[in-house]
Amino acid sequence: MCRFICYRGPEILLADLLYRPANSLIRQSFDAKERSEPLNGDGFGIGWYTPQINLTPCVFASVTPAWSNQNLRRLSEHVKSGCLFAHVRAASPGLRVSEANCHPFEYGRFLWMHNGVVRDFSRIKRRLRASLPDHLYNNIGGTTDSEHAFALFLHLLGDTERICSADEIGQALVETIGQLERWAAEAGISGPSYCNFAVTDGQSVAAVRYVSDPTLKPASLYCSTGGKYECRHGVCKLCDCCASEKTIIIASERLTSDEKNWIRIPPNHVLTVAPDLTVNVEPMDVSRIDFHRDGQKQVGPIESAAASARSC
Amino acid sequence: MCRFICYRGPEILLADLLYRPANSLIRQSFDAKERSEPLNGDGFGIGWYTPQINLTPCVFASVTPAWSNQNLRRLSEHVKSGCLFAHVRAASPGLRVSEANCHPFEYGRFLWMHNGVVRDFSRIKRRLRASLPDHLYNNIGGTTDSEHAFALFLHLLGDTERICSADEIGQALVETIGQLERWAAEAGISGPSYCNFAVTDGQSVAAVRYVSDPTLKPASLYCSTGGKYECRHGVCKLCDCCASEKTIIIASERLTSDEKNWIRIPPNHVLTVAPDLTVNVEPMDVSRIDFHRDGQKQVGPIESAAASARSC
Amino acid sequence: MCRFICYRGPEILLADLLYRPANSLIRQSFDAKERSEPLNGDGFGIGWYTPQINLTPCVFASVTPAWSNQNLRRLSEHVKSGCLFAHVRAASPGLRVSEANCHPFEYGRFLWMHNGVVRDFSRIKRRLRASLPDHLYNNIGGTTDSEHAFALFLHLLGDTERICSADEIGQALVETIGQLERWAAEAGISGPSYCNFAVTDGQSVAAVRYVSDPTLKPASLYCSTGGKYECRHGVCKLCDCCASEKTIIIASERLTSDEKNWIRIPPNHVLTVAPDLTVNVEPMDVSRIDFHRDGQKQVGPIESAAASARSC
Amino acid sequence: MCRFICYRGPEILLADLLYRPANSLIRQSFDAKERSEPLNGDGFGIGWYTPQINLTPCVFASVTPAWSNQNLRRLSEHVKSGCLFAHVRAASPGLRVSEANCHPFEYGRFLWMHNGVVRDFSRIKRRLRASLPDHLYNNIGGTTDSEHAFALFLHLLGDTERICSADEIGQALVETIGQLERWAAEAGISGPSYCNFAVTDGQSVAAVRYVSDPTLKPASLYCSTGGKYECRHGVCKLCDCCASEKTIIIASERLTSDEKNWIRIPPNHVLTVAPDLTVNVEPMDVSRIDFHRDGQKQVGPIESAAASARSC
Repeated sequence: MCRFICYRGPEILLADLLYRPANSLIRQSFDAKERSEPLNGDGFGIGWYTPQINLTPCVFASVTPAWSNQNLRRLSEHVKSGCLFAHVRAASPGLRVSEANCHPFEYGRFLWMHNGVVRDFSRIKRRLRASLPDHLYNNIGGTTDSEHAFALFLHLLGDTERICSADEIGQALVETIGQLERWAAEAGISGPSYCNFAVTDGQSVAAVRYVSDPTLKPASLYCSTGGKYECRHGVCKLCDCCASEKTIIIASERLTSDEKNWIRIPPNHVLTVAPDLTVNVEPMDVSRIDFHRDGQKQVGPIESAAASARSC
Repeated sequence: MCRFICYRGPEILLADLLYRPANSLIRQSFDAKERSEPLNGDGFGIGWYTPQINLTPCVFASVTPAWSNQNLRRLSEHVKSGCLFAHVRAASPGLRVSEANCHPFEYGRFLWMHNGVVRDFSRIKRRLRASLPDHLYNNIGGTTDSEHAFALFLHLLGDTERICSADEIGQALVETIGQLERWAAEAGISGPSYCNFAVTDGQSVAAVRYVSDPTLKPASLYCSTGGKYECRHGVCKLCDCCASEKTIIIASERLTSDEKNWIRIPPNHVLTVAPDLTVNVEPMDVSRIDFHRDGQKQVGPIESAAASARSC
Repeated sequence: MCRFICYRGPEILLADLLYRPANSLIRQSFDAKERSEPLNGDGFGIGWYTPQINLTPCVFASVTPAWSNQNLRRLSEHVKSGCLFAHVRAASPGLRVSEANCHPFEYGRFLWMHNGVVRDFSRIKRRLRASLPDHLYNNIGGTTDSEHAFALFLHLLGDTERICSADEIGQALVETIGQLERWAAEAGISGPSYCNFAVTDGQSVAAVRYVSDPTLKPASLYCSTGGKYECRHGVCKLCDCCASEKTIIIASERLTSDEKNWIRIPPNHVLTVAPDLTVNVEPMDVSRIDFHRDGQKQVGPIESAAASARSC
Repeated sequence: MCRFICYRGPEILLADLLYRPANSLIRQSFDAKERSEPLNGDGFGIGWYTPQINLTPCVFASVTPAWSNQNLRRLSEHVKSGCLFAHVRAASPGLRVSEANCHPFEYGRFLWMHNGVVRDFSRIKRRLRASLPDHLYNNIGGTTDSEHAFALFLHLLGDTERICSADEIGQALVETIGQLERWAAEAGISGPSYCNFAVTDGQSVAAVRYVSDPTLKPASLYCSTGGKYECRHGVCKLCDCCASEKTIIIASERLTSDEKNWIRIPPNHVLTVAPDLTVNVEPMDVSRIDFHRDGQKQVGPIESAAASARSC
């Protein structure tokens, strides 16, 4: 279990997001509020986009804790971006702390992060890997369930060179979970998986808050939308001052104490952010996903989201 | 503020001390019980003696957290020693996380650790360094108050090649604090210093539990003595079974839940362990130490320790 | 391509082997003599046995270069062992420098190292992985051809809990290469593989010097045998003084300048060291190995080694 | 002894400078051409300016070798700057490989790098430190001669908040060497110091090629000037195509094979680059520098540079 944040909006200084909020991700690296274990000290990673320089994201990751990493601190005071993924890791038992296991994972234009655990992943790992085409199979560099789920997502998405819509990305995300669940069922795995995934191509973002067993509470996930994110005099917030600008932050925990501005994403819902920053939140219906090995995919209709969720 | 342990006794497997106790030092690296901040994740170090191979200690240190370090885990399952120092660090604000700043510090046959902070150290750092002979001045590799205090200790001890008695080591430890306090007074530093220091030459051990202001509570420090330390069926304890063997453990926190076997070292007391493992606990009287710049040292009589402390 | 050494004999101080010889492995980490590229700076690892403490080996590895690693230097001056594997890595292009990719690899009582490259490994990786039982499949932590070859070796060896003879280990080593070659042939891979593998269970050792194409020169590999290895006044050598003791060193390069004491292992030969330190060198005949997918293995007769080789 | 480069000119992608030239700095990290020892694998650092975001430079440094650092590779493909310092380190014997010892060193708006060695530095270290004001004394985080020389430079420069001219920076650089030499003379140090220093505030740059003993050859240092630096089809060069743009590269070794475009900086000359990219090369006359302890400084006239140098 880990903590993460996604940012899409006008270019901001990374430090304003990573260090300055009262409950910043750096704070969450040693003092997370909404996990039973407050520590996320098993390495970290950030990925950001500078589309004027390079369409692929820039990833910086390390096995040392985020709170003491001086390179991270310095980069954060010198880099601005309009699309940031950042993750602090609490390694699942038995999984190695290594750069290869640090999120976000990258592939081409895509970044991927995970907060949670794919239950008994070693029991479906072979099937997952066997399903992958060579270029994705051989690209896997670490041992996490998270990176393997990313490879599955990329496979389900299809041509990763093509520009996909936020809907397509969101649907592939839901299918990824559907496929993981089908394999888990086939393997007789009964325990629940927690899959708060987030993915972006630098333009669109999709994120899910998911747990296999609907009687359980998934890991926390929030979103906040507004005009522009600003830190002034030590207070960071999304203000609505700028009608011409839109911003969305998706985060495992509320970064700031203005609770009314943070909306809890409902369990088993998928959130998408389009390139124009239009946000959509809808329930996932993984039970209705039918996955055919011949490559045809059929996704059940995504039902309209709860009113409370839509307002995010 | 950090956490540490010292072990002197029959050779034991390091893992039995570092990993197996319910409140092991590895546990304390992320979940310390007797600090307001439970985290000691800014690197770690261990130092142990194998006198049949080398009279100097072997130090293994890293900037990664102790809980996830695989080299530490493997070494701990393969190394035995009769004298171990181990330390998990919570870096003081502004001090770098680096191997050069990891405790224990070594010099010749000596190891040194610190849990605490020398208040406003930067204001006495120049005076301290200026007082050092070249070989100690040039040996300093990091930036901590702790390592500088070690250099001062070595200077006050005199010839570090000579075998010193536990008493001599203990007295030099008290003098070190006395000198730090005098410089602090001269610099007009009013805030309190916390100086739980531990030092060994592989044979003798000395440790202090100290805070400048007697109205304040020093950082926690315990000791436990017995025949032999053993871990059986997941329970670790010092048993009194072996009349022929003696063991002493000094630790920032009780490692095990058998509280009656752990004695809290009284504030501003110094504990010494002689090569024959005789333990002595006595009050420090730093106010009576008189330090002359010309090299003459005059130490006030160390008074007899409180009965409760002696029983450790 | 990398450099490695294996030591079996009376307990010695690791530094005497790793640091003191004129052409020590540490020297080879930045100035290897028998590779076109002298640098092996992509991390390192050592594994040693302390059978009185633990039957499994102790592995210490790091991604930093061996020449500057202070933990390695200190450990080497404080640890003695009668069975050591040590490796300095030059990462193959495209393979990550990470601890998970550092040799030696361990599994139970076994250690494994590789100097060379399995040609176009990504084209046979899926087949190799698919052939593995779950416990070996899921144990793979890195991405190297070397670690995968080790998993294949363990699978071919069978029950890894059982004590195997040096012959059995040597045969499994040859079968491993045979299987890799068969898969390479099936995949249409034409380029040569270089497979200087070494493996030990702490008692027996087996090593091969191998290249697929007999018209090419395999990577260098030497052995030296004698009574006892000693470093005196800066000169290290295997002396014949001690009739009661035997020692064997296997190394990618001669450690010392007494060239007559180092025998070049002939191309495509396998060397085995039995627990009583009896050494045997024999030609491999991989072409005669017949591997049946149903688990039956049939190994052709190993022919008598060349006289020059036997004398090692 | 190390290798470094400085870039001032139009914004360029860092990878074009660090990775793409035939003899790039990354290449020099393992295969330097103009040092007897080709290896500079003891960590690295880069510092660059993004004045539209932050007036201080962004430093990224690591103890791992530059050639295998994935964070460096990724950053280099995503960051552009008009002022870059980059350094690959070959640690002097006895000096620790640590992030605190990686160049470039930073202070406020300044960056500082060194290729060389201040002879017997430990014999003048105390005097140097004693001469520093507290804010510089306490800012030193490592143990290198290089970082201490930087502190001395900053002290001699005076108010580091003020914008200095390139001349002032160059003069302070020469004074720094003058002061080091005077202390060396007073300490009876006879061996030569090698001081190729480079310093920038993001606008101006100054660099020296210096050895104490004029009968010896200082470490190599080159400069190249032109319109715009470009990498096309694998060939990098400074072209003169763009009359409106100026670029200067200062480097320990020629990055490209167009030798005529690289000018060797004459021994004991100082090169300055003004904010408008005007370049000046002049001989240093350290013998004429008179340093008064009361803070008054008197610098002898800098003589006109050799014609060959001026053309750089």
